Amino acid sequence: MINPPADFLRHRAQRVRRSALALGRRSNGQRIAALEAMAAALERHGGAIVAANTVDQEAAVREGLAAPLLARLKLNGAKLAGCIQGLRQVATLPDPVGHRQLHRELAAGLELERVTVPVGVLGVVFESRPDAVIQIAALAVRSGNGAILKGGREALNTCQAIVTALQEGLAGSAVDPNSLDLLTSREETMALLRLDDLVDLIVPRGSNAFVRTIQDNTRIPVLGHADGVCHLYVDQLVNIDMAVAVALDAKTQYPAACNAIETLLVHRHVARRFLPPAVAAFTAAGVTLRGDEQARALGVPEAATPEDWGHEYLDLILAVRVVEDLEAALEHIRRHGSRHTDVICTDDEAAAARFLGTVDSAGVFHNCSSRFADGFRYGLGAEVGISTQTMPPRGPVGLEGLVTYRYRLRGHGHTVAPFACGEQRFSHRNLLEA
Amino acid sequence: MINPPADFLRHRAQRVRRSALALGRRSNGQRIAALEAMAAALERHGGAIVAANTVDQEAAVREGLAAPLLARLKLNGAKLAGCIQGLRQVATLPDPVGHRQLHRELAAGLELERVTVPVGVLGVVFESRPDAVIQIAALAVRSGNGAILKGGREALNTCQAIVTALQEGLAGSAVDPNSLDLLTSREETMALLRLDDLVDLIVPRGSNAFVRTIQDNTRIPVLGHADGVCHLYVDQLVNIDMAVAVALDAKTQYPAACNAIETLLVHRHVARRFLPPAVAAFTAAGVTLRGDEQARALGVPEAATPEDWGHEYLDLILAVRVVEDLEAALEHIRRHGSRHTDVICTDDEAAAARFLGTVDSAGVFHNCSSRFADGFRYGLGAEVGISTQTMPPRGPVGLEGLVTYRYRLRGHGHTVAPFACGEQRFSHRNLLEA
Repeated sequence: MINPPADFLRHRAQRVRRSALALGRRSNGQRIAALEAMAAALERHGGAIVAANTVDQEAAVREGLAAPLLARLKLNGAKLAGCIQGLRQVATLPDPVGHRQLHRELAAGLELERVTVPVGVLGVVFESRPDAVIQIAALAVRSGNGAILKGGREALNTCQAIVTALQEGLAGSAVDPNSLDLLTSREETMALLRLDDLVDLIVPRGSNAFVRTIQDNTRIPVLGHADGVCHLYVDQLVNIDMAVAVALDAKTQYPAACNAIETLLVHRHVARRFLPPAVAAFTAAGVTLRGDEQARALGVPEAATPEDWGHEYLDLILAVRVVEDLEAALEHIRRHGSRHTDVICTDDEAAAARFLGTVDSAGVFHNCSSRFADGFRYGLGAEVGISTQTMPPRGPVGLEGLVTYRYRLRGHGHTVAPFACGEQRFSHRNLLEA
Repeated sequence: MINPPADFLRHRAQRVRRSALALGRRSNGQRIAALEAMAAALERHGGAIVAANTVDQEAAVREGLAAPLLARLKLNGAKLAGCIQGLRQVATLPDPVGHRQLHRELAAGLELERVTVPVGVLGVVFESRPDAVIQIAALAVRSGNGAILKGGREALNTCQAIVTALQEGLAGSAVDPNSLDLLTSREETMALLRLDDLVDLIVPRGSNAFVRTIQDNTRIPVLGHADGVCHLYVDQLVNIDMAVAVALDAKTQYPAACNAIETLLVHRHVARRFLPPAVAAFTAAGVTLRGDEQARALGVPEAATPEDWGHEYLDLILAVRVVEDLEAALEHIRRHGSRHTDVICTDDEAAAARFLGTVDSAGVFHNCSSRFADGFRYGLGAEVGISTQTMPPRGPVGLEGLVTYRYRLRGHGHTVAPFACGEQRFSHRNLLEA
């Protein structure tokens, strides 16, 4: 009798977990060496990986995959070299493991410490892009975690060639190659979501709807890498040229990104001065503007409907609304925002402070583009994704988001009973860092 | 037409959210004063609260509520005074809000900081104990969060009297009384779990099955306050008297707690010396012992079945197993543990280091009782509960687990485009703390 797929997957996940727990005990140097071995193996197998990608691309063309997806699927020698360079950069990032966050004497001879440790096993489910496999594998091994990866069906050959190379590289290192595994079917993905005793964190990389489907089908914590409805509010006291330049960058520098703005809010006292040059600049950049009545009176060509507020276009479209004042802008963002990143442009420090202290988003910016909301730009080195959840890790998530902590308590036969009856008392004395 | 209950609840949750966002902007002093106002109001309404509790108790007796539940339901004047004292202690804890975790110059004039902020709105669902309302409300307000509370049906009158008093107290403070709300029906609880746009964290306080049911019915992150299957392993090189005393405390000091041990693992080389005095001590303390064959040969009276390993008794029952060596103990814990708290008793520092570095639990202890796994004993001041999840907050969760963080970026018209094309470069210079 053949085991059902779920049992087979459980067996594989157990193998990853066992390897991951060993990986979590490897030293910083051993994990860095493992990343170098992974990079070298990718270089050795570059030809096979690019060839596998060609097979995937040909099949995708035959099946009529849309052009943007085809572009994301493509992995030629140059792009692969960039990925390998990125992997080596992850090796240079500070070790997130083994930081002592707390060191406290609870009572004489009884010492508590809290130390960062790897999460364990990551379940990473992503769309098309095969380069994500390399990035995620690098972040997982660097942070001492195992990873079960599931890429898009259309990238299957590429993903398999990459994971084979990565495992071969790990085989020559102190890290067990079974720390990484690749799933190939949607059925396996659904079964993965049920392994809450073996998988510690699910990282979905895809659309908002994709993330919600995963959240609805698992008890495992999900790092919510969702889309964003970002706002830019232009306050009454503002340098018009600066505000136009920041708004333009925030919309057009890469409109398909989750940190591009979708709605422009303009204080009514500045609308008459701001909107005409802004409309000209946006129109020249090919942006379609949809405004409320007051915005249309000042040159915005199309009319916005209620559905435009809070809508994520991910395209060269921008909703524009003239608001009564700062408070009305805050209320609009509270109602329609997605708590990703929101921007105020103003020369009024009090207005900026009110905005930065009130807007309940992972990123709140003053006089700069929302497009800075990014792990690389924040200086985190690399990112797993951007989380719009409230609980940490929040915003751009780097290596630090892939570790948890553990309490260690060392005593000399200490029991609770004498503390419970008042015979002994806790000292709770924080100890200096070594 | 009357609105369906779900709409009515959504309206109430919106009111809590709005109040909570304002509460989150209150100063440390204002939140401390609000706690004092809550304490004073509980003192003023002590008579009404105790009277309401008498009504609940009488109804519970009529309905035949089990004795332990009746005991937990009871709230007399002395117990209430203790709760009020606890509330005032929470006021003295360090403010978890407003800590700058990161301060970095990204480029000239572009400064990033990461600051702790309240989570927003907590949804807290708990069983019987009405005193939990006071504790949770104190922690919520202290950390700048709103809270929607749902207690057990049998404690309804008491909970209502408490929340009415707390709200009256808040009415005289800078904190909006609507920051706290009380749900009264199971239907409202299920609807609450669906308000993922208004509620940021669910804190269930109850059995493991209760927590899982909640996890299965919500997209909102759940602070997994689950039960624990804690192990104590007695290594071969050990002070027998110390190990017996620690094991006895870990099992009997309060057997119904999740941090009491459920399984005792004994190295085969020490079993002959350790088990006879341990069996005598446990038997004298009224503990039923269930052992494997080797343990029974050394005096453990009852036989353990495979179901005993990994079972949480929460009672004066203890499973006992003789293991080959430390590695066998680690393997047993890996298979049967719940990653709560596990203990090694040994005089061998290398064995202790291996155990503390390998066991994948929120707490790993050396030569002390598992019963120390507790927020008060750790010096956290107060706890929301103990989380057995992997992601932070993990283990005993204090105020720090009720805050998240926000990135604030301040520029002078900075756009991403010149950085993307290489015209400008990031400095990523960490700035000194003020």
